[in-house]
Amino acid sequence: MALAQPVAERAADDTGIDDLVRLTAADMARVNQMILSRTGSDVQMIPEVANHLISSGGKRLRPMLTLATAAHFDYPGEGHIKLAASVEFMHTATLLHDDVVDESDLRRGKPAAHMLWGNQASVLVGDFLLGQAFKMMVEVGSLAALDILSSAAAVIAEGEVMQLDAAKDLKTDEATYLAVVRAKTAVLFAAAAEVGPVVAGAGAAERAAFSAYGLNLGLAFQLVDDALDYGGSSQKLGKRVGDDLREGKITLPVILAYAAGSPDERAFWRRCIEDGDVQDADLPTAIGHLARHGAITATLERARGFGTAAVAALDGLAPTPFRRALADVVGFTLSRTH
Amino acid sequence: MALAQPVAERAADDTGIDDLVRLTAADMARVNQMILSRTGSDVQMIPEVANHLISSGGKRLRPMLTLATAAHFDYPGEGHIKLAASVEFMHTATLLHDDVVDESDLRRGKPAAHMLWGNQASVLVGDFLLGQAFKMMVEVGSLAALDILSSAAAVIAEGEVMQLDAAKDLKTDEATYLAVVRAKTAVLFAAAAEVGPVVAGAGAAERAAFSAYGLNLGLAFQLVDDALDYGGSSQKLGKRVGDDLREGKITLPVILAYAAGSPDERAFWRRCIEDGDVQDADLPTAIGHLARHGAITATLERARGFGTAAVAALDGLAPTPFRRALADVVGFTLSRTH
Repeated sequence: MALAQPVAERAADDTGIDDLVRLTAADMARVNQMILSRTGSDVQMIPEVANHLISSGGKRLRPMLTLATAAHFDYPGEGHIKLAASVEFMHTATLLHDDVVDESDLRRGKPAAHMLWGNQASVLVGDFLLGQAFKMMVEVGSLAALDILSSAAAVIAEGEVMQLDAAKDLKTDEATYLAVVRAKTAVLFAAAAEVGPVVAGAGAAERAAFSAYGLNLGLAFQLVDDALDYGGSSQKLGKRVGDDLREGKITLPVILAYAAGSPDERAFWRRCIEDGDVQDADLPTAIGHLARHGAITATLERARGFGTAAVAALDGLAPTPFRRALADVVGFTLSRTH
Repeated sequence: MALAQPVAERAADDTGIDDLVRLTAADMARVNQMILSRTGSDVQMIPEVANHLISSGGKRLRPMLTLATAAHFDYPGEGHIKLAASVEFMHTATLLHDDVVDESDLRRGKPAAHMLWGNQASVLVGDFLLGQAFKMMVEVGSLAALDILSSAAAVIAEGEVMQLDAAKDLKTDEATYLAVVRAKTAVLFAAAAEVGPVVAGAGAAERAAFSAYGLNLGLAFQLVDDALDYGGSSQKLGKRVGDDLREGKITLPVILAYAAGSPDERAFWRRCIEDGDVQDADLPTAIGHLARHGAITATLERARGFGTAAVAALDGLAPTPFRRALADVVGFTLSRTH
């Protein structure tokens, strides 16, 4: 789950996102209402599982992108509410499907503490949310929005399989990893930011600008998340630090440190990532190796590069409060790193 | 898997479906081509898993329904090809997601022999196929067809969760079980038979007729499948007989036999279904209990009732070769039972 955990959800001092939250608050209340009504079912397990995940906090950055990018064009309609809820359902379905574990994981004694309902429930409730997401999109009636979101769904799944292929494989290089992040995370950000303009009837250039903004924000977001999972540049250990290591996840910091590592360090990473043998004492060791090779700094540099591209994508757009708030979110995302 | 296994796929003497196969053969070749091209991916595991499942035989009854119901109206376009492929992808995704097992199943020593790639691959490749299905539907551009198929996707998932709730619970009654079958199986048959007329521009009455045909055919189909899993009325044991018992599945024969059973018989069913403790010798015992209470006969009676309703739904439609072939399929489905 850590990979998909929004940075926003970890923040206590998130001033940089306040404008966006405030500007979209009224619409977001309607999105929340929509989410609640669409997770209703006579089949009790569905609202149970869905609400657990949906109500477990988070600022809902993805649906906010849809709301803000539609509002940027003074969109007077209703379609952005259902599209924003669809985006959140797609995200939640991905989280649920990410929860599914393999027999081999279980054998290795990784019981996946978040698995409250089991594999089958995770899959099926995720499928239900995907079905509801597509129903809402169809109700909005925009084939262009449907095209963007259904393509995103296929790419996300492709990215997940790509990650499964690359999992535990320290030969994964930076380009492959970025392709995974693009598919798994950034494409949904891009879609969320593009369907707003689409439903508001904006032109192709404006659609492309917001899509590029979303894609680059998503890339920055995930790389910052990767860095934070090893404590970020402050190396103050927050409570979530170390999840990726414990789960044997390949992330950019590890890829960079492994590439530059000594034979002993490489053996360490192989034991942790490929053999899945991780002890509590390994986290400080890992953080030491990452620091020695500047892997966190380099990861954050990449993130800043994508952040700069995200802000630049907004350049040609009208200077509305929404555009400003969206630019601030980039700063907010990056500011969480030190 | 047995629950979703088409009867057609088991048949060696399937004359009743020959007309439908012949009439849709040219279009089906194009559907197969479409399926192949849409399971292509640079991510090697995707075509591997998808093609394994898709090419593993089967007459593709569901996409044939879409092709035949469009052709009934002399539909001259291309949309039915992609819609038929979408229907098959949705079905395949359901099979893949059905393959996902829980830790508890593994502990009980049910290794799910069909699990060649593991839970995660099953989920993610299924998600990829769902994404591709929606992309193809969007390309066809019919919001009405999108509405039918996305609603079906949500209902199927709801049915799966419903079944998970009812699983191993011998208190499940006939009405609940039929609601599960309707949602899990029959609704996709109904959608497959309705999107043909929809894309062909048929009227509401004709859409409703084909939808009702599909729904009732799906119900009959599944109940026949349930009966066949205990040998059908012939009680000749085919090689697939007994899957449902071994997997501890609640099906209509078991529900009826349990309701009428003696205390000893009920204890037997509880051990097999609720405790999941099934030995080889239990299958003949189960078949004996089912025969004693006429549970197979009663299940097939229900199936014949739905079959009659399926044929009746076609009454008001023009007497094309397609309509005749679709009516024959009902007879074929029912004829497999003795």
